[in-house]
Amino acid sequence: MTYCVAITLDAGMIFASDSRTNAGVDQISRFSKMRTFIKPGERVIVMLSSGNLSITQNAVNTLEQRARGSPDGQTHLWNATSMFEVARLLGDALREVKTRDGPYMAQNNIDPHANFLVGGQITGENPRLFDVYSEGNFIEATPETCYFQIGESKYGKPVLDRVVTRESSLVEATKCTLVSFDSTMRSNISVGLPIDLLVYEVDSLSVRLQRRIEESDRYFQMVHKEWGEGLRRVFTQLPDPDWI
Amino acid sequence: MTYCVAITLDAGMIFASDSRTNAGVDQISRFSKMRTFIKPGERVIVMLSSGNLSITQNAVNTLEQRARGSPDGQTHLWNATSMFEVARLLGDALREVKTRDGPYMAQNNIDPHANFLVGGQITGENPRLFDVYSEGNFIEATPETCYFQIGESKYGKPVLDRVVTRESSLVEATKCTLVSFDSTMRSNISVGLPIDLLVYEVDSLSVRLQRRIEESDRYFQMVHKEWGEGLRRVFTQLPDPDWI
Repeated sequence: MTYCVAITLDAGMIFASDSRTNAGVDQISRFSKMRTFIKPGERVIVMLSSGNLSITQNAVNTLEQRARGSPDGQTHLWNATSMFEVARLLGDALREVKTRDGPYMAQNNIDPHANFLVGGQITGENPRLFDVYSEGNFIEATPETCYFQIGESKYGKPVLDRVVTRESSLVEATKCTLVSFDSTMRSNISVGLPIDLLVYEVDSLSVRLQRRIEESDRYFQMVHKEWGEGLRRVFTQLPDPDWI
Repeated sequence: MTYCVAITLDAGMIFASDSRTNAGVDQISRFSKMRTFIKPGERVIVMLSSGNLSITQNAVNTLEQRARGSPDGQTHLWNATSMFEVARLLGDALREVKTRDGPYMAQNNIDPHANFLVGGQITGENPRLFDVYSEGNFIEATPETCYFQIGESKYGKPVLDRVVTRESSLVEATKCTLVSFDSTMRSNISVGLPIDLLVYEVDSLSVRLQRRIEESDRYFQMVHKEWGEGLRRVFTQLPDPDWI
């Protein structure tokens, strides 16, 4: 399983992904699910992936390969003029890999399901965030819905719903993202540390912060402890029903 | 969708279910998902259901019908000597209805999935709680896992995991159940009020409290407000990361 969150705010963007993959509980590994394509001052593109690892890796590698030595006139990650074009490139690559590998995977009933969050900013437009579905079609975040999740999304959704708005600061949204991961990891052991975290400040066209949060991370340990204790405190302070 | 929780504690049991059913978003109705079979001083049996309403209603009605005028020698809800027997009766009834109606539903791709939580106490044994799967097989709650959920279970699970233990009081567990429903209803509109709540005190062999919590319920409104504010307060009090 996987858990990824991407949030787009007036102040910038937050991306976060866990690093646990499993092919059955007896085969658990660590793979980063975040890929970045950054040219400072011009473009910051971040991709988070969920689903079949061979499909998601191959889709991104296909894009990366193509962007390296692409003939003139073809759109790729380094010359796309909008994040909309980037999302379309990613959707197309996903379809291509699924078309190529899907029938062979189907022979052994292997699930080729895979999807992406892709966001960032390209000079000339505002930051944008897309959710690319397993079929390669996609939607874009709007002011009303400023975050997307993929993977094991439900445990960590309530706190995002309660706290994050378009007006949240980067620090608030980062904190909330870590709380959301903490709730998810507490209820689903197939989502695990480390967390890859990336913070992007609007119009900076460079990465403000990229951090890998490991088991030993003091701040995350503190969030885990304080949040758990805080919830229990709020719970204890709730008045008892008078009808029981 | 549906959300049901049942908890078994040293002090007794809590049962709660929402009342929203939907066959598509344009066909939303209210149906209670809690059925009780109570003979004070002898047995308290509570069933919570999730999934296809025709299947769950028919399974329970089959049991109820059979228990009315059952010939001697046959086990039914009113003469079963253990909750284990009751869970088996319910699993069998579920299989019977699915065998009867399933093939016709399959003709229109209608999902016959349905499951139950069934618990309570029959004189001569301790309170017991079972989770009856859609295939009619079932598991029993143990001291390590003292609650079951069916339906839209994920949003409301973190708070149960953090608060409820076998040693929780009936009041604590009731409060926690309501918070769990509040979190679920906030994130999934297909789970809705009223909540049917039943509190059972160990060895009482009668119902301590049965209450329908409607939109106008002052206590639930307070829980909703205080919990939301409390969470945001705990969140605000979390120190900011010093690395951002």
